[in-house]
Amino acid sequence: MASFDSIVLFGDSITEGAFAAGGFGFLLADAYRRKLDVLNRGMGGYTTDWALPVFEQVIPKKDVQPKIRLVVIWFGANDAVVPGFTHHVPLERFKTNLGTMLSMLRDPSSDWYHTPEQTKILLVTPPPIEEKAVAHWLATAFEPPFSMDRKFANTKMYADAVRAVGAERGVPVIDMWSAIWDAAGQTTEGLGQFLPDGLHLNAAGYKYAYDLIVETIATNWPELKHENVKEVFTLWENIDKENPRPSLQANRLP
Amino acid sequence: MASFDSIVLFGDSITEGAFAAGGFGFLLADAYRRKLDVLNRGMGGYTTDWALPVFEQVIPKKDVQPKIRLVVIWFGANDAVVPGFTHHVPLERFKTNLGTMLSMLRDPSSDWYHTPEQTKILLVTPPPIEEKAVAHWLATAFEPPFSMDRKFANTKMYADAVRAVGAERGVPVIDMWSAIWDAAGQTTEGLGQFLPDGLHLNAAGYKYAYDLIVETIATNWPELKHENVKEVFTLWENIDKENPRPSLQANRLP
Repeated sequence: MASFDSIVLFGDSITEGAFAAGGFGFLLADAYRRKLDVLNRGMGGYTTDWALPVFEQVIPKKDVQPKIRLVVIWFGANDAVVPGFTHHVPLERFKTNLGTMLSMLRDPSSDWYHTPEQTKILLVTPPPIEEKAVAHWLATAFEPPFSMDRKFANTKMYADAVRAVGAERGVPVIDMWSAIWDAAGQTTEGLGQFLPDGLHLNAAGYKYAYDLIVETIATNWPELKHENVKEVFTLWENIDKENPRPSLQANRLP
Repeated sequence: MASFDSIVLFGDSITEGAFAAGGFGFLLADAYRRKLDVLNRGMGGYTTDWALPVFEQVIPKKDVQPKIRLVVIWFGANDAVVPGFTHHVPLERFKTNLGTMLSMLRDPSSDWYHTPEQTKILLVTPPPIEEKAVAHWLATAFEPPFSMDRKFANTKMYADAVRAVGAERGVPVIDMWSAIWDAAGQTTEGLGQFLPDGLHLNAAGYKYAYDLIVETIATNWPELKHENVKEVFTLWENIDKENPRPSLQANRLP
């Protein structure tokens, strides 16, 4: 608990890895230090189907302190496996599941209703995959080996779907699919520098997530830029040294 | 909020910097991902005097979900400035202040009482300082420049005091003063590789904090080792694919 409002990062392994060396999670946590907690709610291998019951538990029900100021929702990498494999979630249901998360937050009759003023939402598209590298990883990193269950074109379809849901529902989208594909020169060969196993991002790849999140916050909600959020506990220079206690009361966003 | 129990890192700038690249905060956060949040409650320039009113606000009052499983208390670097300078806290009051934090947590009549079973405590000694580098940093990094206000021998006295409080109160101490001094070959020249500005740790220095914390947890409270804490939301392999919802209920430490 410990009384800071938060940014929640909700997603699959690409989010779970956010606090590993080079992940974007600690870049955000450091940017918002003294101000907001950045909470890692990434769960490796999860799809939106399995994420929904978890969402009900990680999002508090209304009017609870401390408050979530931003939810970053990043799924699709596993939903996009081809039909017949365990993780597959049909495209329409994937879109519906994302829509359900948005409605849980935005429908005033929802137990999890959070006002747009208090809680911002970002959707993120799954990055492109490099099929050869993924096939190698699945075949060698697991005992027993996994069969190849992903296609570049499928992941792209799910990325498009995230963008469509964002557009329909008025939620900004961090387009990691396009950012990484463009940075890769739109070539399969170029992907390896951002996706060492063909699926998960390294520091160079995560840097795009960090930069896009920061930029999108700045454009849409400048009050949430880390420079504009006040420290919860004031800078030491501002403590009234003669009578410290009043200046040591927590500052909160309205 | 978002419903994970937590590890709270409470201290001055050496803790505030814990999530910068190379900090120990994200090493801990990654080790405990899926299991516990690691919350940065470091405040640059703070002494134990100013930390006490903050402690009252960051530690919840009893029986509140989610629970704090470990509090890491790391002060002294600023308390140890020489008398006459703003940050100075006399040695006896420094010890009393630390004792007050411990009593807030451990005295059954305290509003902030947390049982030893539920909430572990670690004290950490301030690292040694390299006086020449600190003098240079204070004179050049600030406008107007700060006067030199620290002594190697004073910081050592406050490190000794932290160890004494830990011994008196039965709280394990992470001895960063000794760890860094020994790693520096017990020479002033050797300190620079861990303390680039003479006061704050770099990644090489923070690694000692991470390793000592992990080791101390393993020795004293093996149930809190990250390997032994269950994921709050189960590994995807353990989801009952036919009937997912029951397997997606949060797992909590007792």
